[in-house]
Amino acid sequence: MSNATNGPATRRVQAALAAIEAVDRPEIWITLREADQLLADAAEIDAAVAGGAVLPLAGLLLAVKNNVDVAGIPTTAACPGFAYTPDKDAEAVARLRTAGALVLGATNLDQFATGLVGTRSPYGAVRDSRRPEFISGGSSSGSAVAVALGLADIAIGTDTAGSGRVPAGLQGIVGIKATLDVVSTRGVVPACRSWDAVTIFARHLSTAEAAMGVMAGNSRAWPADVRLAAPEKPRVAYPDSLPALPPEWAAEFVRQVERLRASGVDAEAIAFDDFLQAARLLYDGGLVAERYAAVGSFLVEHGGGTDGEAGIDPTVAGIVRAAGTVPAHRYVADTARLEELKAKAMARLDGFDALLIPTAPFHPTLAEVAADPVGVNSLMGTYTNFCNLFDLCAVAVPAAELDGAQFGLTVVGRTFDDAVAADIARRIENTPAAPGLFAAGAAPEAKSEASQPPSSVPWPVTAGATAVPLVVVGAHRKGQPLAPQLEELGAFWDGPVRTAARYRMVSLDTVPPKPGVYRSDDGAELAGERWLLSPAALGRFLAALPEPMLLGSVQLSDGSTAVGFACDAVAAASGEDITAWGDWLADRRVQPRQRTVWQDLGEAALAGFSRGDRG
Amino acid sequence: MSNATNGPATRRVQAALAAIEAVDRPEIWITLREADQLLADAAEIDAAVAGGAVLPLAGLLLAVKNNVDVAGIPTTAACPGFAYTPDKDAEAVARLRTAGALVLGATNLDQFATGLVGTRSPYGAVRDSRRPEFISGGSSSGSAVAVALGLADIAIGTDTAGSGRVPAGLQGIVGIKATLDVVSTRGVVPACRSWDAVTIFARHLSTAEAAMGVMAGNSRAWPADVRLAAPEKPRVAYPDSLPALPPEWAAEFVRQVERLRASGVDAEAIAFDDFLQAARLLYDGGLVAERYAAVGSFLVEHGGGTDGEAGIDPTVAGIVRAAGTVPAHRYVADTARLEELKAKAMARLDGFDALLIPTAPFHPTLAEVAADPVGVNSLMGTYTNFCNLFDLCAVAVPAAELDGAQFGLTVVGRTFDDAVAADIARRIENTPAAPGLFAAGAAPEAKSEASQPPSSVPWPVTAGATAVPLVVVGAHRKGQPLAPQLEELGAFWDGPVRTAARYRMVSLDTVPPKPGVYRSDDGAELAGERWLLSPAALGRFLAALPEPMLLGSVQLSDGSTAVGFACDAVAAASGEDITAWGDWLADRRVQPRQRTVWQDLGEAALAGFSRGDRG
Repeated sequence: MSNATNGPATRRVQAALAAIEAVDRPEIWITLREADQLLADAAEIDAAVAGGAVLPLAGLLLAVKNNVDVAGIPTTAACPGFAYTPDKDAEAVARLRTAGALVLGATNLDQFATGLVGTRSPYGAVRDSRRPEFISGGSSSGSAVAVALGLADIAIGTDTAGSGRVPAGLQGIVGIKATLDVVSTRGVVPACRSWDAVTIFARHLSTAEAAMGVMAGNSRAWPADVRLAAPEKPRVAYPDSLPALPPEWAAEFVRQVERLRASGVDAEAIAFDDFLQAARLLYDGGLVAERYAAVGSFLVEHGGGTDGEAGIDPTVAGIVRAAGTVPAHRYVADTARLEELKAKAMARLDGFDALLIPTAPFHPTLAEVAADPVGVNSLMGTYTNFCNLFDLCAVAVPAAELDGAQFGLTVVGRTFDDAVAADIARRIENTPAAPGLFAAGAAPEAKSEASQPPSSVPWPVTAGATAVPLVVVGAHRKGQPLAPQLEELGAFWDGPVRTAARYRMVSLDTVPPKPGVYRSDDGAELAGERWLLSPAALGRFLAALPEPMLLGSVQLSDGSTAVGFACDAVAAASGEDITAWGDWLADRRVQPRQRTVWQDLGEAALAGFSRGDRG
Repeated sequence: MSNATNGPATRRVQAALAAIEAVDRPEIWITLREADQLLADAAEIDAAVAGGAVLPLAGLLLAVKNNVDVAGIPTTAACPGFAYTPDKDAEAVARLRTAGALVLGATNLDQFATGLVGTRSPYGAVRDSRRPEFISGGSSSGSAVAVALGLADIAIGTDTAGSGRVPAGLQGIVGIKATLDVVSTRGVVPACRSWDAVTIFARHLSTAEAAMGVMAGNSRAWPADVRLAAPEKPRVAYPDSLPALPPEWAAEFVRQVERLRASGVDAEAIAFDDFLQAARLLYDGGLVAERYAAVGSFLVEHGGGTDGEAGIDPTVAGIVRAAGTVPAHRYVADTARLEELKAKAMARLDGFDALLIPTAPFHPTLAEVAADPVGVNSLMGTYTNFCNLFDLCAVAVPAAELDGAQFGLTVVGRTFDDAVAADIARRIENTPAAPGLFAAGAAPEAKSEASQPPSSVPWPVTAGATAVPLVVVGAHRKGQPLAPQLEELGAFWDGPVRTAARYRMVSLDTVPPKPGVYRSDDGAELAGERWLLSPAALGRFLAALPEPMLLGSVQLSDGSTAVGFACDAVAAASGEDITAWGDWLADRRVQPRQRTVWQDLGEAALAGFSRGDRG
């Protein structure tokens, strides 16, 4: 351990400790771990890495919302009287730690995760990272601000009605709210058990995705036809009206849609009423009874006192206590109504890859929330409440700055379309400079993050979704005529590969032209590309494959194997041998269309857009 | 129409009308359609068939439980005051009619489908088909007895806690309760909306499956990895204790397990407590609030009267009214408890293909039920209550006669394992002689049923599950060494086929030995077999396929195509040409193992068992 005390994790902790002191935002933390504990943990991580351990999140500093168990730290849910000290990490925390993340402390929240404002806590209202007179957003207030200020690299939030997205939007950071139960909720204080999700915050989407790949899995199984990427030209729906948005924000939303269009996304307005009606059901109907089931008995035990020793927030107590009087048949009727609305809303999304919406409708001040704590809170959930009720996934990313406020967009995907939503969000992501002390590239996490190799596969694959590699050499390469067949099946383009030197290639007389590959003792290495497909996508692709194309095991130059194309002997004998070309594209002078698209994305057409770390 | 008035449908209606009169069981029907209407419908069906229409259920007589809408017939749910006359068939009814089924009438039930006894109806207690002093079982009482007596060929039931299975068990018929929402509940009076299923009754499993294939679909999508068959040697769990069963019934259950073992099933006892605890949650906990949500407002409107003009059954009214006082947070807590129990129960089923249980625990008399209407009813659901709560599927089949009583078994499968459960139930099915008038083969439906060609594919495929055909010629044929690879993927064996005369075959030097097939201008027809696989199963199979085997499109002798095996040119050149054999098995003198197994099933080892129509 001793020889690693000045390793990257240790330096990251030292920088964070200095920054935490410098920013002077004590309301972020309910429990901040002691410096000696943090440095000891960092030394251990540095030593492990020096010893050759593979820790994908080595030394990333993690803040944990205090309704999620961290062994040895009291779980308060921002209610001192509710506190208990767990002897075990929540599963999400344990997974991140095993991957090398280092828990900095437990963060403040709207009490019992009931709120979207960040002000409902006896530990103090959490202030906006840039403009302290504004709210942080909540309920994952401390986690979001810790990341926005660069104190933590990643932070765990929770999200029932938007608590993992609204503060991401207001703080100019990324928040991923995966499909329900993809991340285990074991060790989390429930808010509304049926719709609770554990979320992640980070400044960059690539960091958030790396954390999701570790944090998720082993809970709800991915389907056999899970989509692993958005198509090259996605179809995105957006609301045909924008309730609760001030005109400047609505205009910015329209500009963002235009930019997406310019980048090759097919964007179309849809009616949004069914989504909004579901949003209202969460608090105006019987569904709120879930909050009473979660913490009602605690509030009853603590009698009528709303702000006594137990530190109960009066607004939260009022909401939860009222939820105790809902009759079950009303809850049942409202879930039936919810299912009807879901069916209608999903029909609206038919044919679209995702839904694009503002993350939060506006950014209120602390004073505005104090003046109308329930009314403003309710408006904040306009674009987030429906999501978990409909079992959708969401990726919130920063898109623009607007008169000093952060304007965030959320890409909402269907159940298990997490990789699709992330792909589209990547086109939008526009991470602002870190605020205050950490502007101009001084954010300490930048270094730590840069040390993380970007994952080469979509995070659901890291989190257990089955992906089968398929190697293509010709018409199914990215940008070639048949690539859309794979894109429509949700295939992920994993980059160029080379086969082992045991294949020959002929030019087939097919429409479109294709190379025919066959195994030969007199073979050569061939240039190809690897896609990743779900098992069902591969089965469907095979079922539709015409003669003379065949699929089977192919060996690559790195010794690995994949499913690859072959042609039968009749076809092999019919074509001109082009093995010497080595690369079907190179010699056929086919313009590889994908390069143009990628250039478009990276350069002129998308000034102001960023593709994150993968571009 | 005129020249078809003496067609099969017409004759079937005439026989049914005579039988309905002869059996004198008016309590079966709430509405029986008029003879002239029935004969007109039959003439129309006969004419359509004569005109070449393909109607898979042509002329099958259908009885419909009266909580399911039939256009023009009052839907009473066995409560006269509740009646409304729909102008549209429920979706399940419409689908069966479109396929040629003919609605005979609407049948009696336990009021609002609340009960498992068949006695809770102002239209009279429905009596057992064989011993009128016994109950029919319920709540789908009239439908089950109509089928048992041979008055109807198929009948629609509904099932929340066992209403589509308990009466099947007591009446010696088949009841299929598919995975929830695979059959649409549109047009059905809800009982407990979250767990209601529309079910089918028939005397034979093959008939019930044919009806399910038509009735299901277009509601809840089948997963991309749906299993389409049980493996050749299934693994079946059964309870390690049998609560509520008298010793004779328990002994028969043990005998049935032994018979299954003798037929090649691997049967093992498991702890059953988690299943039983879930069963108790349905009525002893907060979940019963769903019943109030369904019909509570009707009962409130009709004041305190329990048996006045509205014809409200006092036992049912007591249950539903009490359900109105459950608080929502208790319902929420109980659904959380239910999910915990489900996780534990599903862990018990790990590694098993299905769970085998008695359908009903015993067969009470009308007097026994009258003496303790709630207590006896509750016991009747011991083996059925948990099923829908856990989102499982179930197939109830007759297994034996026991001192004049019918002893039924139910095969319970995981969500969407409907084809697996049916496959295992087929090994058990032992349809008794029809009772009374229709004994000794006189049951009129026998003829009608025999006219139905058995479906060649599992009913979920007919109902929309995607199945990809895979043609094999060698080691993957049924009974051959690699067939278990396909069986483990849930593949369905669809029988022998021949390729088009354009392939050659070599003997490959692989372990185990395999034929290598390749396309050739000088080819021949090859004998093969066709399996049906889900898309994900095909993808997984391809992903695991070793060199030099390849998969691609293969043409069959009937002009159709399928996915089929090929080998590459190197392999083709390496083996001895055996095209002249025509059939890899025939000339290699491989004993086709499956023939032995099928003989076992059909003959000596399984006296008393029947494989239905497909053997």
